[in-house]
Amino acid sequence: MTERKTHKTQVAIMGAGPAGLMLSHLLYRAGIDSTVVEIRSREAISHTVRAGILEAGSVDLLVGSGVDNVLRKGHEHEGTEFRVNGEGHRIDFKGLTGQSVWLYPQNDVFDDLAAQREADGGDVRYSCSETQVSDLLGRPKVQFKDAEGQEWEIEAEMLVGADGSRSHCRVQIPEAERTWYFNEYPFAWFGILTEAPRSAPELIYANSAHGFALISQRTDTMQRMYFQCDPKTNPADWTEEQIWEQLRLRVNGNGFELKEGPVIDKVVLPFRSFVHTPMRYGNLFLAGDAAHTVPPTGAKGLNLALHDVRLLFESLDSYFKTGSSALIDTYSERALDRVWKAQYFSYWMTTLLHTVPTEENHAFFRSRQLGELRSLLESEHGRAYIAECYTGWQGK
Amino acid sequence: MTERKTHKTQVAIMGAGPAGLMLSHLLYRAGIDSTVVEIRSREAISHTVRAGILEAGSVDLLVGSGVDNVLRKGHEHEGTEFRVNGEGHRIDFKGLTGQSVWLYPQNDVFDDLAAQREADGGDVRYSCSETQVSDLLGRPKVQFKDAEGQEWEIEAEMLVGADGSRSHCRVQIPEAERTWYFNEYPFAWFGILTEAPRSAPELIYANSAHGFALISQRTDTMQRMYFQCDPKTNPADWTEEQIWEQLRLRVNGNGFELKEGPVIDKVVLPFRSFVHTPMRYGNLFLAGDAAHTVPPTGAKGLNLALHDVRLLFESLDSYFKTGSSALIDTYSERALDRVWKAQYFSYWMTTLLHTVPTEENHAFFRSRQLGELRSLLESEHGRAYIAECYTGWQGK
Repeated sequence: MTERKTHKTQVAIMGAGPAGLMLSHLLYRAGIDSTVVEIRSREAISHTVRAGILEAGSVDLLVGSGVDNVLRKGHEHEGTEFRVNGEGHRIDFKGLTGQSVWLYPQNDVFDDLAAQREADGGDVRYSCSETQVSDLLGRPKVQFKDAEGQEWEIEAEMLVGADGSRSHCRVQIPEAERTWYFNEYPFAWFGILTEAPRSAPELIYANSAHGFALISQRTDTMQRMYFQCDPKTNPADWTEEQIWEQLRLRVNGNGFELKEGPVIDKVVLPFRSFVHTPMRYGNLFLAGDAAHTVPPTGAKGLNLALHDVRLLFESLDSYFKTGSSALIDTYSERALDRVWKAQYFSYWMTTLLHTVPTEENHAFFRSRQLGELRSLLESEHGRAYIAECYTGWQGK
Repeated sequence: MTERKTHKTQVAIMGAGPAGLMLSHLLYRAGIDSTVVEIRSREAISHTVRAGILEAGSVDLLVGSGVDNVLRKGHEHEGTEFRVNGEGHRIDFKGLTGQSVWLYPQNDVFDDLAAQREADGGDVRYSCSETQVSDLLGRPKVQFKDAEGQEWEIEAEMLVGADGSRSHCRVQIPEAERTWYFNEYPFAWFGILTEAPRSAPELIYANSAHGFALISQRTDTMQRMYFQCDPKTNPADWTEEQIWEQLRLRVNGNGFELKEGPVIDKVVLPFRSFVHTPMRYGNLFLAGDAAHTVPPTGAKGLNLALHDVRLLFESLDSYFKTGSSALIDTYSERALDRVWKAQYFSYWMTTLLHTVPTEENHAFFRSRQLGELRSLLESEHGRAYIAECYTGWQGK
């Protein structure tokens, strides 16, 4: 057993997901030193299939900092389709708001940022264990064992918790100093990866009496699809034919048919809304899933994390350059403004598109939902408003 | 006891509220005979304080049929104000959609139509009792005692149930032939009439942590205001000072103060969403509250009734003029398209603006609601979409 090693840095960042790495990368470009500590291996993060849609503002953040693979490997989507009982309605993001989104999976964002941090000699420690944080009100410390079993203590001026929805940092904050907000949903998503060509050039959000489905894309030969299911569903119980039957029922119609192929991955994704406030405690700042999780329907999770990081970077940069705490003191409030808009939009998209099998007033709920979809989709203002929220409230 | 008298007409109409009288008036102008049967007295209907906002389409229907007092006695409102925690945000209906609404109370609409029917020699029987309808699948009959106690039987080709939310006609339809849709709400409105000058030139929809309030106007010296309350509230238990305290808490702020005065009427209005489908059974057609009730937040009840009447008039006119049942056969489906949009909008405005004291996830609900209000009110598309729904989906 070797002796504990120590290291000093300006910013210690817990978590090397896209949020943690993006922040570390932005700080590096601004000449601010950081160390990133992550419990998972780089390979494990790289192989976690997650969100796929980047708002224009997220793309700007990446490209503006020199990480621009998204422009070559991603796909710009200028709109999306809402299918209601098999009838398609396109929402023309670009035409309605001048904005578009990009299909570029979260693991590609991670790979790009991890490669960039490596190329820049960034201090990113994957596969750590026994992580502990302390001294949140003073000079924060991070203790951990690295991948080789070496014990470390990092002393930092600021600590960032970007350690995801099971955040270790978050739970260090005393109960009296924080408020947690929850909402549970009576459904989950059954997600598959399938070896098949694209069924459509853009995402399809499908509402039907059988429930919700989302058709998205990954590559020319690999597609990602989801359908609403009971949260207690065990993916292993479902045959390929049963899966395709559900997807066909919810999406096909009016001459449109899904392109089917072998199902190579099955997963059930739970739904949950969660917010931790405030997003700062002493010298600990929370960003991304560590502070908030949204249901996936609005495609907001990764985008919200990158928005937090943009605000947090500007705040820390201002603090280290000028010594003024004006921006770090308002980080939480400014970040939460968008967090609650995104929570609302994610909740709204979810209730707009899913069926609720357990509601007592189900018949009223369903007819009201179809009335809402008609009112929105027949209206240019309604479509433009959805487009504005989905593409990320640019300029707001 | 005199003998039962009989009368034949083309259309028998149950209910002499605005819907029944409007239909009778339109039929008269098209040369189609009708008899209207009403259990309440003309005075009682005239003194029932109800809705006050007419969509442009409702004004068009009245004015286009020669009933144009609204243009002289009503007030055109080109917008409204949403106040959130005491901060005002105007929604410019006219600027955003080219449409406006009119403040013109439902009892004035009734008085105008009643006077017009009287001037035209219309057959409107108020203060009837012991009403019964029968032969809905053949030549419908209506039996009743008139105001003088005389027994009548009216035989008609078509029967219209415009007899309000406690419709006697509706419940004659066999259970197997209809579906009822319900939603209940955990709050009601406390409504007052007050002798005070106008507090504002347009309606104010106020959302606050204390609950919802609506400030509306009647005349230069008489105002109508509402605030969200527990459905079990007894108006008699509330003093004027308690009432004004609640209104101040929810509306005043940023230099704005309500103009207060004596409270001359207090009432608690229950909230409910209800739809009966289909809106036709044999030769019985339902219109207005007889087929659907909405919570008052969206100001849709009277407008929806007048929209039903417009469609039903066109359908009956086509039937009597051409013998074709094409329009009467699709009346229900066409009317329900707007009914469900209005149910959605009324439900949405209600959940957008009221607080829900009993929800387990109240903290999440409230912050999400404020996120929704910010997202909508900061967005020109959001404001335009609200304006489009509120002014009545013109051209949709």
